[in-house]
Amino acid sequence: MVNIKRFKQTFDHVNEYGKTDKGMTRLAYSEEEKGVTDYFISCCREADLSVTFDAAGNVIARRPGLDPELSAVGLGSHLDTVIEGGKYDGVTGTLAALEIIRDLNDKHIQTRHPIVIFAFACEESARFGFSQIGSKIFAGLIGKKELARLTDKEGKDIRSILNERGLDFDRIEEARCPAPKLSAFLELHIEQGPMLESYNKDVGVVTGIAAPTRFSICVKGHAAHSGSTPMNQRQDALIGAAEIALELEKAARREMEHGTVATVGDIEIEPGAMNVIPGETQLKVDIRSISRSSKDRVVRTLYDTVDRLYQTRHLKIETTMLSDETPVRMNPKVIDSFENICEKQGINYLTMPSGAGHDTMNMAALCPAGMIFVPSVGGISHHPDEHTAIPQIEKGINVLEQAVLHWAEPVDIPVPREQIIR
Amino acid sequence: MVNIKRFKQTFDHVNEYGKTDKGMTRLAYSEEEKGVTDYFISCCREADLSVTFDAAGNVIARRPGLDPELSAVGLGSHLDTVIEGGKYDGVTGTLAALEIIRDLNDKHIQTRHPIVIFAFACEESARFGFSQIGSKIFAGLIGKKELARLTDKEGKDIRSILNERGLDFDRIEEARCPAPKLSAFLELHIEQGPMLESYNKDVGVVTGIAAPTRFSICVKGHAAHSGSTPMNQRQDALIGAAEIALELEKAARREMEHGTVATVGDIEIEPGAMNVIPGETQLKVDIRSISRSSKDRVVRTLYDTVDRLYQTRHLKIETTMLSDETPVRMNPKVIDSFENICEKQGINYLTMPSGAGHDTMNMAALCPAGMIFVPSVGGISHHPDEHTAIPQIEKGINVLEQAVLHWAEPVDIPVPREQIIR
Repeated sequence: MVNIKRFKQTFDHVNEYGKTDKGMTRLAYSEEEKGVTDYFISCCREADLSVTFDAAGNVIARRPGLDPELSAVGLGSHLDTVIEGGKYDGVTGTLAALEIIRDLNDKHIQTRHPIVIFAFACEESARFGFSQIGSKIFAGLIGKKELARLTDKEGKDIRSILNERGLDFDRIEEARCPAPKLSAFLELHIEQGPMLESYNKDVGVVTGIAAPTRFSICVKGHAAHSGSTPMNQRQDALIGAAEIALELEKAARREMEHGTVATVGDIEIEPGAMNVIPGETQLKVDIRSISRSSKDRVVRTLYDTVDRLYQTRHLKIETTMLSDETPVRMNPKVIDSFENICEKQGINYLTMPSGAGHDTMNMAALCPAGMIFVPSVGGISHHPDEHTAIPQIEKGINVLEQAVLHWAEPVDIPVPREQIIR
Repeated sequence: MVNIKRFKQTFDHVNEYGKTDKGMTRLAYSEEEKGVTDYFISCCREADLSVTFDAAGNVIARRPGLDPELSAVGLGSHLDTVIEGGKYDGVTGTLAALEIIRDLNDKHIQTRHPIVIFAFACEESARFGFSQIGSKIFAGLIGKKELARLTDKEGKDIRSILNERGLDFDRIEEARCPAPKLSAFLELHIEQGPMLESYNKDVGVVTGIAAPTRFSICVKGHAAHSGSTPMNQRQDALIGAAEIALELEKAARREMEHGTVATVGDIEIEPGAMNVIPGETQLKVDIRSISRSSKDRVVRTLYDTVDRLYQTRHLKIETTMLSDETPVRMNPKVIDSFENICEKQGINYLTMPSGAGHDTMNMAALCPAGMIFVPSVGGISHHPDEHTAIPQIEKGINVLEQAVLHWAEPVDIPVPREQIIR
């Protein structure tokens, strides 16, 4: 059992960095993120880890294993936040990893595999509109070319931002994972959704990460007088948008068993006046699933709806696919190990998809990878009200610790003191 | 037959006032509107009319009748425009009235009733968000109290605006119609909709004017992560808005025989991001009909939908009724007179509702009132592309002239020269 008080102390200290009147703001590569990262590095060193701050800004802290031939077991998450976010997203998993190392140290537990904890750089898309830079670079999924054009919202380019953070953009690809690869990667994260709470479960064992397919959609109708244009002579762009939103909802509901979701998150309207039939609407559509074929069926429905609206309502609809990522399934052996541990520990768990993206989806390109979730109160995330009760986090860390031991192969587990006494 | 060349010359001259790069801008009580009004007054005086510029800014130009006991036949429209509007809205009907007077003068036609032409002040809501000030005051439908709070978009109050136009706000109620009331009021206007064009008709005989019932609607759901919130645990405010829009459309389509229309003209969304389920939407709803009971049925559907969305989707929906005007039916005798004239003249006409509001709906409170429409190309109005072909206007003016003669009772119609020669 980990020392949850110690976890909480470190957690509170970490959340002094980037604290604002409205939640936490530790944007990637910012001063606040440098502060928290430096503090985290000092904690890792205190725990006798050898720390690398790599060319992408990832913190990689290594605990040696007894067998020099074996590849490491990775765990961790990230320390950056969105603008005015919460205290739990990323930090919980990163400090869970640290607490597990501290606990193994306390108990003098050695493992055959090395254990490496990661605090990945720039997991959130809040700064560049581009997420998981650190883990994508580490996993070799992107390189300089894909990043060179990025700027933040103030127009500052990634090269100068990295430079201010003491990093050289030209060398960023040096952060790619060296061979040998990891033997496993494990991440604990808050759920950022309502499922665990609504099913009254303590831990979520993630089956897959539902990468988004995103569209920008422009519905072109005909702006006309709202009073003098009869109902059967209209080309109302808002009505077209309404049909798209409802058809997408229906399609995603049909695919619920695959954890598929579809959302129209934004709508803009032209001209937008009480007495004018909308001439044009712009929609942002986000479709996610852990099943490629399920997601494709929802996308098919979108295209069919667009065709039908042209036939029936004479609306011209332009669909622009902004991204089309492939869902990532978690490794079945990692899923099994989490489930077995939950069952042994008597933890109520739910096997569930992750609708949000995480660093683990990139690490899955390198090694068997998996995640567990702890509940988010009210499903709230990316918001100052984001919350998970500490006892819930404790349960999650204990599951994660057992999984780390499973994968890292302890060579000496001293009998805990309580059991000796009993 | 009127002199359409002369009409066109005056029409072109009038549209020099307030001409901009993008259509016409002659806002109520502006310098541009003063210019056109002064020019119009000079035209009326040249046509031997006695002109009053009343306390509301209405131009009232009187041609005496032979019987001093009889009340006048009114006709006319307005000269103000929206911002960047067209050349035809209002001007067409006002100058049609002038051309009819000029034609009667040419032909030495006297009438038993006086004929009074009106150029009503501030018909458009573009300046104050309040329409038909001139005709509403004249008809005694509003007074100082309702107007006192009005300001234009730059925050200037109606008192100072009228003052700059040489008018005294405190005396505005003096513009109320003196007894005796009119014996009839007739207005020619462009349709501002697509019906005449799509049915290939020359003239629309208006059966009623569909006053709006307007709502502001706030749909409150729950903003949450678009990826991690399953479809059955959402309170999506945009989905609620979409259902409202489609239910209103269906309800109005069921009422099409009453010329009923319903429009969601604007939607605003919070927070409006690709990866967030919409937490709140604000809608503007405009429902119109010439039948009170038909409009009420659509409003009932709106309320039913709001109740259902609360039951089924747990969306809290606040509906605020902004206005609820009663439709105005045109006088059956006036409708008959227009129809009879069209049939005699072999004019293809359509009896139809007016979806847009007009000064005639106020004049209907004083006397038997009616309107005819001439076609709007593409149904376009309040836009620089607003257009009606001059031969179409000519047909309309000739119908209107015959209606004026019908109501004003000519005492001497000289045989036209062509018929003598033939």
